[in-house]
Amino acid sequence: MSKALEFELLNKDTRSKARRGRITTPHGVIETPVFMPVGTQATVKAMKPEDVEKTGAQIILANTYHLMLRPGSDIVRAAGGLHEFMNWHKPILTDCGGFQVFSLGHMRKITEEGALFASHIDGSRHMLSPEKSIQVQNDLGADIIMAFDECAPPDADREYIARSQARTTRWLERSIEAHQNPDRQALFGIMQGGFFRDLREESAREIVKFDLPGYAIGGISVGETKEEYIGVLEYAPDLLPENKPRYVMGIGTPDYIFEAVEHGVDMFDCVEPTRIARHGMAMTSQGRVSIKNAKYERDFGPLDPACDCYTCRHYSRAYLRHLFKAGETMSHMLLTEHNLRFLSRLSENIRKSIDEDRFLEYKEEFYGRYYRRDK
Amino acid sequence: MSKALEFELLNKDTRSKARRGRITTPHGVIETPVFMPVGTQATVKAMKPEDVEKTGAQIILANTYHLMLRPGSDIVRAAGGLHEFMNWHKPILTDCGGFQVFSLGHMRKITEEGALFASHIDGSRHMLSPEKSIQVQNDLGADIIMAFDECAPPDADREYIARSQARTTRWLERSIEAHQNPDRQALFGIMQGGFFRDLREESAREIVKFDLPGYAIGGISVGETKEEYIGVLEYAPDLLPENKPRYVMGIGTPDYIFEAVEHGVDMFDCVEPTRIARHGMAMTSQGRVSIKNAKYERDFGPLDPACDCYTCRHYSRAYLRHLFKAGETMSHMLLTEHNLRFLSRLSENIRKSIDEDRFLEYKEEFYGRYYRRDK
Repeated sequence: MSKALEFELLNKDTRSKARRGRITTPHGVIETPVFMPVGTQATVKAMKPEDVEKTGAQIILANTYHLMLRPGSDIVRAAGGLHEFMNWHKPILTDCGGFQVFSLGHMRKITEEGALFASHIDGSRHMLSPEKSIQVQNDLGADIIMAFDECAPPDADREYIARSQARTTRWLERSIEAHQNPDRQALFGIMQGGFFRDLREESAREIVKFDLPGYAIGGISVGETKEEYIGVLEYAPDLLPENKPRYVMGIGTPDYIFEAVEHGVDMFDCVEPTRIARHGMAMTSQGRVSIKNAKYERDFGPLDPACDCYTCRHYSRAYLRHLFKAGETMSHMLLTEHNLRFLSRLSENIRKSIDEDRFLEYKEEFYGRYYRRDK
Repeated sequence: MSKALEFELLNKDTRSKARRGRITTPHGVIETPVFMPVGTQATVKAMKPEDVEKTGAQIILANTYHLMLRPGSDIVRAAGGLHEFMNWHKPILTDCGGFQVFSLGHMRKITEEGALFASHIDGSRHMLSPEKSIQVQNDLGADIIMAFDECAPPDADREYIARSQARTTRWLERSIEAHQNPDRQALFGIMQGGFFRDLREESAREIVKFDLPGYAIGGISVGETKEEYIGVLEYAPDLLPENKPRYVMGIGTPDYIFEAVEHGVDMFDCVEPTRIARHGMAMTSQGRVSIKNAKYERDFGPLDPACDCYTCRHYSRAYLRHLFKAGETMSHMLLTEHNLRFLSRLSENIRKSIDEDRFLEYKEEFYGRYYRRDK
């Protein structure tokens, strides 16, 4: 077991697989289940780190693909690592960069060695391999780093998935081998196998052997149907050790979060709250609100009367609508802060409901408010 | 004298016309000379109001033209006024809207009644008159409001300036007549007269008769040479009452500020610090810094080692350069905060130097650092 990370299982819901846990990292403690805001380019878009922390965020994610290309991981390392560079002194997780590279489509080529790709910034050619991904992540210095995996598309056939999954296991072995700081950075493995239960079982069997400090369930929330997503959640978390944190990447809508938690997942991240904020969308206790709606022109009430965030305490819907219509940066800043607080509070409430053994009741209450009303 | 504003003259420099003063408004005290950040559309771009206040800002400016078109002054009034609407509880000054309308060029027509113009947002036609400008400013509820004037272009001929100046005086009379809240909002008159001393004298004589709580020197810093600018400053402030604050609109570079103060001006505003921040430019104790310069790629020192702002205390030039190159909003946020602190500190230092009767020495010291070195 890595000295970089400890996981305690604090409580279990008796009528679902939901679990309350606590992760300890070199930069602090993370209560789980936890939503992790994304700071792709070493900044949570339109937020000061102190304000991110005030929303209740315990850990943020940064992207290896973006940072290796700009500013370059050597610069971040020379700055003293990502925490120093970006002035965020709580835990950080970096992804392996694979997902972004594979999303480049025809601009990349996958081989046993890794993925050859052309930069989205200047078209320059780069190789991302397990060794390169881990070297970049070692430079960045996040508390939790991810093994290099291939996240296959949801419509890939069984043969492709089987080959890709086996290769991901070989890449995991190379990732572990390449990792220079196991005492300061906890390396998580990633289960693949698409929507084929036997391939998932095979993947889990292989990666669990390495006794890593944590595991992710990869290849879901990548464009499949919600039924397919839940289908994998029904068995995949159980294939992973109970005493290690479980992470699903790229989920940030309440329903996907509730489903993951219900099936025993502890960690999740997504650009959803920050991205929709920049499009004038807010998550509220009454469901989604599109602030550009004309009906808010003279609405001097808060964005969400049930919210305790900075935005809701100080500004009206009319003001937020004005800022958005006027193209003001402050609109992005205020809606982002609200949405991050929304998902942090959701995580807090989920944790409380598990501690009180009423997770399913809380889920039902939440759905009743969030999804039933038409906005 | 208006109950909305009091002005105390605290100190005078013995070797220049620089003066230390104190303005008291319904929303607080303003020590002068003072630089006022601009929040055109009811927000200082990319800044939370609490952070604006932390830079040392004592009063901000908002623009009547923009706010009358969007969201509309009736909405701001219904929100409880600009202070409530934008969550800024210190003094606010609104301009009269004339400058923006006259800048529309062929999209506006000036008559004795006022200026007919087409909105830059949707082309809709509006009339901005003294009565309309004051009504909008009464709705917005700023502590200091401006009479409706014509700011003639710097290349206008004497005949045009003479006519325009006389009309501005008639518009002032109508502005005073239209003003509904003289006990809560102090109305300032604006001297015009272009670069013709006798016309400036005539303008001053006329507007001073109204015994207003403060006066602006209009029609400078509008594209003339620095010599022409200083030429007007050499006599114009003396034409105004000593016991009233004097305001020059649209100046935000240190040299223009020092010249204004040296000649007895108390207040000034400009979009300069906020606008150049969004283009990656910082004002520092060593002069201007363009953060996109490649030489800052691995510069882990602060933007300005002599600065006490949030940005300089927490971030490196390398990080700021990265944010700017990556197109991150955080770049605008951090450079804006720095530049506002720079001009607030400059104002603080100017005030201190006047109190210590060493304004000209301070000016020379400052110029030696800011303008001599090539960045």
